[in-house]
Amino acid sequence: MDLLEKRIISEGRVIGEDVLKVDMFLNHRIDPQLVDAIGAEFRRVFADKDITLVLTVEASGIPAAVACAREFGVPCLFAKKGRNRNVGKDVYECEVFSFTKGETYIMSVSKAYLTCADRVLIIDDFIAEGEATKGMLDIIRQAGASCEGIGIIIEKAFQSGGAKLRAEGYDIRSLAIIDEMREVPGGAPVIKFRHDR
Amino acid sequence: MDLLEKRIISEGRVIGEDVLKVDMFLNHRIDPQLVDAIGAEFRRVFADKDITLVLTVEASGIPAAVACAREFGVPCLFAKKGRNRNVGKDVYECEVFSFTKGETYIMSVSKAYLTCADRVLIIDDFIAEGEATKGMLDIIRQAGASCEGIGIIIEKAFQSGGAKLRAEGYDIRSLAIIDEMREVPGGAPVIKFRHDR
Repeated sequence: MDLLEKRIISEGRVIGEDVLKVDMFLNHRIDPQLVDAIGAEFRRVFADKDITLVLTVEASGIPAAVACAREFGVPCLFAKKGRNRNVGKDVYECEVFSFTKGETYIMSVSKAYLTCADRVLIIDDFIAEGEATKGMLDIIRQAGASCEGIGIIIEKAFQSGGAKLRAEGYDIRSLAIIDEMREVPGGAPVIKFRHDR
Repeated sequence: MDLLEKRIISEGRVIGEDVLKVDMFLNHRIDPQLVDAIGAEFRRVFADKDITLVLTVEASGIPAAVACAREFGVPCLFAKKGRNRNVGKDVYECEVFSFTKGETYIMSVSKAYLTCADRVLIIDDFIAEGEATKGMLDIIRQAGASCEGIGIIIEKAFQSGGAKLRAEGYDIRSLAIIDEMREVPGGAPVIKFRHDR
């Protein structure tokens, strides 16, 4: 997605060789117009899918997931992290290790909102090692629902999550795929996008 | 907001006398159309304000905050909960007690995205005791920015957060104000809305 790559190049910051900060437009401060464009792009990419639900996990996937759900005319469901007394006990849940936070958390979804009849599109902002995505897939499996596709805004292809899930047969589409990146002290970072998708 | 009250009455569930579950359309499974209507309503309610930024806190305020930011043509910034290695250290932060989770968390915002020139509209899904809102106000104060208004989707007026902040002079507008509610075993809950706002 050209618009997205341009924003990453012009505003993104690389720290070391594996952290890409895009919190100025994507996952802390959010540009609503870009989010809408991302939602429309996911609709285009998965146009042949008959989706009943968009699933993401809190928090930074939510804006794009809601934008995408609007495009498909379906609800968006976001999995919760941690235990929450208002969610109740009737949930599908799994443990997920977050490399970003360096800790394991419980991901949960109320059983009432995900059924075996659902054809789910997973949306998330990043895929690196794929832990969060695998957690959502586990929850979809527990519900007996089907995963029709996985839409990722930015894939760090130098980490293994996307490749492993493709090898398992999942239809993952990433709007920007980064093969390599590195910080350049005093200069613009090097970010190499893959375009053969 | 009539549409919102109708959804609360037709779908909301009351547990005891203080928990209102609206996670079927607002803060777990999200109806994008309702979220868009809420964003437009906040734009109407705060039409006379010259807003530069919409601020919320993760996670359940994000959909409406992004919708509202789109209406105003400004960015949305969501405060993070907990420590996160990708946010960095250059943040405004404060401690917030969550009655929902029964624990204290750190709320933080990168200094880069909130400056003394910002005229901020706070958006959140609920106000009860007002702890999250007070945290965001603290962060706005730390930045030297101004709070132009506080838009809440559902106010539990039988808890003190909204009243206290109004008494302090803040312009709080809630799209649904609940004066009283209670669970009715085997029947529809009683939910009394205030309409004299």
